[in-house]
Amino acid sequence: MAVYTKVSAKALGAFLKDYDAGKAVSFKGIAEGVENSNYLLETTEMRAILTLYEKRADPADLPYYLDIMSHLAAKGVQSPEPIQDKQGQALKKLAGRPACMISFLTGVSTETPNSNQAFAVGELLATLHESLMDFPQKRPNSLSIDSWQQMIDAARDAATATDSPFAALHREAESECKSLMQHWPQDLPTGTIHADLFPDNILLTGDSVTGVIDFYFACTDALAYDLAVTLTAWCFDVHQTYLPNLAAAMIKGYESVRPLTATEKTALPLLCRGSCMRFMLTRLTDWFVDTGTAVVHKKDPRDYQARLRHFQSMTSF
Amino acid sequence: MAVYTKVSAKALGAFLKDYDAGKAVSFKGIAEGVENSNYLLETTEMRAILTLYEKRADPADLPYYLDIMSHLAAKGVQSPEPIQDKQGQALKKLAGRPACMISFLTGVSTETPNSNQAFAVGELLATLHESLMDFPQKRPNSLSIDSWQQMIDAARDAATATDSPFAALHREAESECKSLMQHWPQDLPTGTIHADLFPDNILLTGDSVTGVIDFYFACTDALAYDLAVTLTAWCFDVHQTYLPNLAAAMIKGYESVRPLTATEKTALPLLCRGSCMRFMLTRLTDWFVDTGTAVVHKKDPRDYQARLRHFQSMTSF
Repeated sequence: MAVYTKVSAKALGAFLKDYDAGKAVSFKGIAEGVENSNYLLETTEMRAILTLYEKRADPADLPYYLDIMSHLAAKGVQSPEPIQDKQGQALKKLAGRPACMISFLTGVSTETPNSNQAFAVGELLATLHESLMDFPQKRPNSLSIDSWQQMIDAARDAATATDSPFAALHREAESECKSLMQHWPQDLPTGTIHADLFPDNILLTGDSVTGVIDFYFACTDALAYDLAVTLTAWCFDVHQTYLPNLAAAMIKGYESVRPLTATEKTALPLLCRGSCMRFMLTRLTDWFVDTGTAVVHKKDPRDYQARLRHFQSMTSF
Repeated sequence: MAVYTKVSAKALGAFLKDYDAGKAVSFKGIAEGVENSNYLLETTEMRAILTLYEKRADPADLPYYLDIMSHLAAKGVQSPEPIQDKQGQALKKLAGRPACMISFLTGVSTETPNSNQAFAVGELLATLHESLMDFPQKRPNSLSIDSWQQMIDAARDAATATDSPFAALHREAESECKSLMQHWPQDLPTGTIHADLFPDNILLTGDSVTGVIDFYFACTDALAYDLAVTLTAWCFDVHQTYLPNLAAAMIKGYESVRPLTATEKTALPLLCRGSCMRFMLTRLTDWFVDTGTAVVHKKDPRDYQARLRHFQSMTSF
């Protein structure tokens, strides 16, 4: 949540010359997105978000993410549209980084959604899944269940050290991972999923979704797993208390566009346990990464330990 | 350069009800200002910067800063105008912090100014000084020459430790401080000064200044010292090489509005040495502060050691 790479007025001016975009009127670094540098840019012609992709983003994957946004925008889904330069290129270079301008979307994120908003998010997620059915590209989910044992192994020394607050969490992750591996469903409908639809990636005006952003974890995986991620991300309060009304509204919203199959419905609590594992393990991994001078607000993996316990006790939605 | 305090959509909505400001359309944390949380807010009625003042800002000083901005805006100087609520209050509370909305200004900061821009900044600075001549409030400069010896003493242990890269700098600061104390001019014209007019506090469109921002170091002190701060901040490149053309243009711009007295002109190189001391010492102090989880990009005090050496070798502009 920061600006890692500075863009000078001079470099910005030169960059804008490649586009039919007019001249810069205002340019502010914004605290959005965890891994990249983002600027809110206003020119004499338009408003855009300018993103510079930092080291953690694999340049080879960037066209995939941008193509998803273009595909969705072309279908009228409220996602940002990559802006092409005069040569038709959207992915460019700026200040030594891969860079892209995407269209600006209005709306404000909420941290305390109501059930109308949860319904709207469910609806949006299903619309996104449906709209991407004919998206031809594939990208494996690098944070899928296949990656979890490796993350558990990599974090073991640090997590179980005597001064670590995460020894119990690590033990729980070990046994949960074994259980999930045994029961993980293999036959669910798959497609292109967002895989990170947290509240800060949804822009709202009142109860309406005006934007879905940050496609940089998108991949090919089970559609119902994406719903599980979204339920896990939205349906708890700051005390990690489960909010059943939000979950019910979100599933209802989802099914108003794309009804879940019986197998998906049955799998949902287990998929939510998997979603908790994914965020618990990446947070645990990030906790022990030495960030040097980089600016990363470390998030507590134990939030997802609490959510995991909730879903372990749940047999159906 | 970060957002320290998060404002929820709910809290923002409640806050906006006190104003004739419409409803939020867009709300982005921006990476602006080192010490406070800033948001770029767009409502159905207007655009504004919303600032939440963090711990380092003394709440007792906030009305002073806001009154300066109001005073300047009323005189047509390109400074942000504090926005009053329905009761005529500009300084409010939000998310447990003192908070204020100020009008949004267009323009983009430059890190590589040209001499036309330096002239415009000099002109703006003199206009600011003239416009604040009848500003009745006073605030002592808490980072004036009277504070330097104390900062040197406070940093001694850390700066002279065996693993410190700043032992030589600290020795230089000690002797420079003694010399400046002996020669510091006491009879210069004083007034309300900005005291922190770095390039990132000036917004430009082409070569014209469209905004001067961040008045949170403003105080009562010698007007020529403010010019010295601005020269020190603008007239070196990234390699700390002095840029005489920029300095000449800035002084010319300043004098096109407010001619310097002979005493001010003579004092200018010494005042520039003082300005280098001020930023060298605050950077040195900040270097050794444990910021915990706060997000502070530490700046190297040695940049100002290099600038100081330049001004030590200079007898006149």
